[in-house]
Amino acid sequence: MPDYVERLKQYRWTCKRALNGHGSKSAAELLDEIPRDLGVDRYGEGGAVAALEDEVRTVLGKPAAVFMPSGTMAQQIALRIHADRLGLRTCAFHPTCHLAIHEENAYVRLHGLVGVTVGDAHELMTLADLQGVREQLAAVLFELPQREIGGRLPPWSDLAEQVAFVRAQGTAVHLDGARLWECTPYYERSPAAIAALFDTVYVSFYKGLGGLAGCCLAGEAADMAEARIWRRRHGGTLYSLWPNAASGLAGLRRRLPLMPQYFQHARAIAERLRDLPNIEIVPDPPQTPMMHLHLRVEEIAFLRSAAHIAEREGIFTLGGTSPGWTPATRVVELTVGDATLNFTAAEVAGLVERLVAGAA
Amino acid sequence: MPDYVERLKQYRWTCKRALNGHGSKSAAELLDEIPRDLGVDRYGEGGAVAALEDEVRTVLGKPAAVFMPSGTMAQQIALRIHADRLGLRTCAFHPTCHLAIHEENAYVRLHGLVGVTVGDAHELMTLADLQGVREQLAAVLFELPQREIGGRLPPWSDLAEQVAFVRAQGTAVHLDGARLWECTPYYERSPAAIAALFDTVYVSFYKGLGGLAGCCLAGEAADMAEARIWRRRHGGTLYSLWPNAASGLAGLRRRLPLMPQYFQHARAIAERLRDLPNIEIVPDPPQTPMMHLHLRVEEIAFLRSAAHIAEREGIFTLGGTSPGWTPATRVVELTVGDATLNFTAAEVAGLVERLVAGAA
Repeated sequence: MPDYVERLKQYRWTCKRALNGHGSKSAAELLDEIPRDLGVDRYGEGGAVAALEDEVRTVLGKPAAVFMPSGTMAQQIALRIHADRLGLRTCAFHPTCHLAIHEENAYVRLHGLVGVTVGDAHELMTLADLQGVREQLAAVLFELPQREIGGRLPPWSDLAEQVAFVRAQGTAVHLDGARLWECTPYYERSPAAIAALFDTVYVSFYKGLGGLAGCCLAGEAADMAEARIWRRRHGGTLYSLWPNAASGLAGLRRRLPLMPQYFQHARAIAERLRDLPNIEIVPDPPQTPMMHLHLRVEEIAFLRSAAHIAEREGIFTLGGTSPGWTPATRVVELTVGDATLNFTAAEVAGLVERLVAGAA
Repeated sequence: MPDYVERLKQYRWTCKRALNGHGSKSAAELLDEIPRDLGVDRYGEGGAVAALEDEVRTVLGKPAAVFMPSGTMAQQIALRIHADRLGLRTCAFHPTCHLAIHEENAYVRLHGLVGVTVGDAHELMTLADLQGVREQLAAVLFELPQREIGGRLPPWSDLAEQVAFVRAQGTAVHLDGARLWECTPYYERSPAAIAALFDTVYVSFYKGLGGLAGCCLAGEAADMAEARIWRRRHGGTLYSLWPNAASGLAGLRRRLPLMPQYFQHARAIAERLRDLPNIEIVPDPPQTPMMHLHLRVEEIAFLRSAAHIAEREGIFTLGGTSPGWTPATRVVELTVGDATLNFTAAEVAGLVERLVAGAA
């Protein structure tokens, strides 16, 4: 098994075609995608950074935006600002929130915040879940779509009702909008219309938009001015932030308009996958360009099949699987991006079918 | 006055020649300097990041090195690790230490550390200063050279004695080696020989080495493994760190060997400046490729002269001055780099003389 994993790491870079997202590009290819005509910043001021912040302000309809090196930094900062404003320490979020599972408890260790998880890890947060919290909260973090459960979205009316309830308690509402762009076709609403529900919004440039790294935090001017000071404290006000900002701006302009196309292709792929054996699509139908596939397959069979397809056909499908929610299943995340558009829905389904069958 | 400042901001990018450091380069020029053949990383693992960490490990003679987005992040993390290991909160440093004046008290606000400043802000730290600290310290931060006082270096024997004293108290020793490279000609010692005095060493790639941004923290393997976790907590484990790492690696290879040349040119420039009126060189002679010039000049006269030289001769000298240590003086920092090497020492002195005279 380790052999397949290692081989797949190599194949990621040598295969001519990739199934997932925008594929894996070389340094040279990525450098060529960075706009060369945008100005450089100095410690986050001016140049491509200011240009991106301006554009994001407009796209999100918020008074101010601050470029940040990472969402981990941006979201801790947003919650810290809300907490300090209200003189409270407790923030609430879904059990699968990025802060809860991917950040080594940084919000606790660096900011002395306290987390309360709301709802069940396998389902979306509900109004009843929020009503069950019995303490005054500084902020509630909403994540759209809820990535770790397949990129699920609540109906718009549920979302609006939840946000209204939270606001009525005097609690701030923050959006983890790393994949906000991906929500626009399903909600048939602009990024600004969605962002309008929230006090602060974090959006990412390297996921669906295909930039190098980095994000923006957007919100009220006073909050964003304070966020700049916290960015410096976190060590995020680098001497040069322009390469990532320029790449993000190019990604925003190029790929935000493609979201409906990615979404429709995800739906078409799900159509083809739905009736295949040993596959459950989550959510079904997909609500964004991403979906999780819960596969009844042994990991080694999956990896062997992926390695063979990569080796013989020059197609990099997926690098591995994650533990399933039951012992007999494994989970993979399929995100439709530029690379995926190069396959018909039938081709994608055919490849997934072979991976699930463990077929060489 | 504001007019001159604004005009100089523009001239920085339009002048053909620059006096200071490596000059100001456009995004296109900087992109062309990034090596295209190094691999990409994923969240700091592999590719150019691993290559740079390997090389820094060797150059500094330390068991492990971790690439970090910024020194602000790296040094907080180093002090936090030392503090946690020893179960202490207090760290000592020079009053002009970067943590004390440029980081919005992040070490206090994010890490709950306590700072003690040691020595006088206008002079180097001494053994007597360290002996005057009357509490158990987690770590002492040394900065080589002491940037805010002109890039001064203690005699090697003084440094060794201070470090030995600190170690004897059971206290960790950390080096702010942002400009460690620049110390090697004066000490006639390799980076590794200097780094050997310290438990942890931070080195920067965007100052003397001319990279885009970023740094490494180096030290024992267990400490660096912990530093990786803190990097994630700070939001520094970006999806892509390779552009800055590749740029840093190129800078290290290209410019570390040039440090003696920069240093000799700084000494030659000081020779020419020494006897000019209204200029004090700090330190005199320079101990690294940098020096501070304490100028008896009014800011507006300096700016007018700089703007005129930029406009008429296409030479960008300096963008402004900092407050002096007395009301009648202003301070500028001159760093000898690639751009400065394009001027003879006499030419540099002639330009500085005109700036001090406020001559158009």
